[in-house]
Amino acid sequence: MEFRKKTLTNGLDIVGELNKSAKSVAVGFFIKTGSRDETKQINGASHFLEHMLFKGTERLSAIEVNEAFDRTGAQYNAFTSEENTVFYAAVLPEYFARVTELWIELMRPALRDQDFNIEKNVIKEEIAMYKDLPSFDVVDRCRSLHFDTHPCGNSVLGSEESVEALQANQMRDYFMRRYVPNNMVLACAGNFEWERLCSLAEQTCCGWQRQTVERELQHFTGSKRKEHIKKANLAREHICLMSAGVSAQNERRFAASLLAAIIGDEVGSRYYWQLIDKAIAETAVMQFGAMDGTGAFCSYIRCGSENVPEVLGIINGIFVDLSKAGITKEELIKAKNKMLSALVIKNELPMGRLIDLGFNWIYLKQYRTVDDDINAIKAVTVKDINLLIRHLEPGDFTQFSIGPTQSE
Amino acid sequence: MEFRKKTLTNGLDIVGELNKSAKSVAVGFFIKTGSRDETKQINGASHFLEHMLFKGTERLSAIEVNEAFDRTGAQYNAFTSEENTVFYAAVLPEYFARVTELWIELMRPALRDQDFNIEKNVIKEEIAMYKDLPSFDVVDRCRSLHFDTHPCGNSVLGSEESVEALQANQMRDYFMRRYVPNNMVLACAGNFEWERLCSLAEQTCCGWQRQTVERELQHFTGSKRKEHIKKANLAREHICLMSAGVSAQNERRFAASLLAAIIGDEVGSRYYWQLIDKAIAETAVMQFGAMDGTGAFCSYIRCGSENVPEVLGIINGIFVDLSKAGITKEELIKAKNKMLSALVIKNELPMGRLIDLGFNWIYLKQYRTVDDDINAIKAVTVKDINLLIRHLEPGDFTQFSIGPTQSE
Repeated sequence: MEFRKKTLTNGLDIVGELNKSAKSVAVGFFIKTGSRDETKQINGASHFLEHMLFKGTERLSAIEVNEAFDRTGAQYNAFTSEENTVFYAAVLPEYFARVTELWIELMRPALRDQDFNIEKNVIKEEIAMYKDLPSFDVVDRCRSLHFDTHPCGNSVLGSEESVEALQANQMRDYFMRRYVPNNMVLACAGNFEWERLCSLAEQTCCGWQRQTVERELQHFTGSKRKEHIKKANLAREHICLMSAGVSAQNERRFAASLLAAIIGDEVGSRYYWQLIDKAIAETAVMQFGAMDGTGAFCSYIRCGSENVPEVLGIINGIFVDLSKAGITKEELIKAKNKMLSALVIKNELPMGRLIDLGFNWIYLKQYRTVDDDINAIKAVTVKDINLLIRHLEPGDFTQFSIGPTQSE
Repeated sequence: MEFRKKTLTNGLDIVGELNKSAKSVAVGFFIKTGSRDETKQINGASHFLEHMLFKGTERLSAIEVNEAFDRTGAQYNAFTSEENTVFYAAVLPEYFARVTELWIELMRPALRDQDFNIEKNVIKEEIAMYKDLPSFDVVDRCRSLHFDTHPCGNSVLGSEESVEALQANQMRDYFMRRYVPNNMVLACAGNFEWERLCSLAEQTCCGWQRQTVERELQHFTGSKRKEHIKKANLAREHICLMSAGVSAQNERRFAASLLAAIIGDEVGSRYYWQLIDKAIAETAVMQFGAMDGTGAFCSYIRCGSENVPEVLGIINGIFVDLSKAGITKEELIKAKNKMLSALVIKNELPMGRLIDLGFNWIYLKQYRTVDDDINAIKAVTVKDINLLIRHLEPGDFTQFSIGPTQSE
């Protein structure tokens, strides 16, 4: 493994981790923009843009983009979150240059009116589809309730209304402000030539114009409000709980992830033994999400309506017990082992490695080896986590639920 | 990479591919048993058994099994198909011995009456859940229609009736006949000690008794029947098409997979350009499944009811054109690139490598490197595929559909 880094004069960061023994290579663009960077008026623009990048450039039609990827045999995709838009592909080393050139080309899309109008319907269908998935909808609504006026409460997809109202020129304006080289990272992991990557980027990306770009990073603690919506057609109650976490820049992020696993990993956690194993809930998981300057714990629970009071009582009991007695050494050992193996296995693949490489640069401007993360996880103590519980009070949460009955 | 192999006196094959540069190790048992090895009376027994193995042994309760995996941090799971039951786990090298011992122990489960009775309800709920998924149900029903009286038509999950009627002693009897060492492979890939694997297996597995075990391997060509079921509550038509393929032992299996990708890969295929890109269907994919002594092409299409005649007309046109004109060189290049990159990327991870290692031994008693498969794929010619089309006639298919309207 060898780390290389270069910054073009316009501010575009290029980072690479070379692994000559890898059989594939993954390459992608990380753009530091997402729904938190949108105003209410253009909510959904980041995600819409992600779709539009595949619609082609001045030189390539959407069909030609599709066929160009196809010829490389790439496994490729993109995703948009509250704060990032990521485009990535994994290919055999012989197609590295071709797929890298393609991504570079797509970063300056045509954004044609006609494509925009057609794609608007695709996006609206996607929004409708997710609205029909209560497990997704409840988390989306809970995030908005929790983050309140903080921009991290903006929905990634946007609403049907905001997307309907969005104009092509608003999207082009958003693109011009956010897809600037000093707000992007070109990252690459696996078996490739570093000099080749740099020369490909220099050829084209040097023409991109630097611009001042900002993000609101105010502090927040969460609204702690509780809301319920009745949907008569549902068979089950869907509950989301959110509470304050630490940021992606905070070194306690590893302790926070371990805490979430202890409370709500899919198997073997407190939720698991007290809710799932006893068949009181069907799903009960907690995850921790570290974000730019902030972070949140998020629980999702699905159960029969008749079990809601018992479920909430048990969850309350879990948090009371954690506040009083803290976690056990055995719990921490199990959570660490699971996190370490997931980390190592994910990073064994260039595609998985790319994601961590890119995000570490986006959030920290730092190269971290897998061993750096392993050591950080191993170093977390029972005391660290118990202090975190005292500091963050995960039992003091925002709550949103959707289910077939009226709330009490 | 180094391949090692050992057969215990009772017939248990142990195969390993050592990769000292891997950061993890994957280990699993491949049992050559699935729904095709069941009679109608005990249909669902293989899948039921897969669940029961996690319910514990004479020494371990279900909770203790769960906690034992948890302590290793394993990423583990199991699956049952028409002809195999596979248990696998990936861990960090330091937990290799512990997780291997655990799998070995679980291969001789307690199969307690009480656990059986509780698990029966879990399985029945799983069956009910999948029945509610038309995309799954239509494929399951089409397979039964296609394979007709051939045992490959047996449903993996079984029916609610067959599972309800299943007795614990029938399942124990099935276990005794099928989970015999000469019908199993213990496989391991990644960073581990070969001698350690062998000594762990010898300690315990040597006590397992060899028995004669058989499988019906008769030839078949498919029923080619057409059936439709009306389900008024559905919004969309779900169509499954199946036709004869080649077996997992046939060297033309690579050509068959390429043909399926050319016709029905998710993007860039004939289905894609003629059905998806034109918005006539929402999903249209074809896959090829090579099985023991047989094989099948399987297409799944979802569309609005009003589009069914047009969809079937277009599909018919695709097959007529393939029969007459064959595939193009460009199509083959694209399909190869996609298959090669998927193959290489999957096999870069010990977990992915384990699956190919185990199945190559189950089906071929052969060690194949990734390069062996790469070369086999690269060697396929346009002529090979056109000959395959002529030989197999993929346009002559069995058809099952489920949708909101009565069929014409």
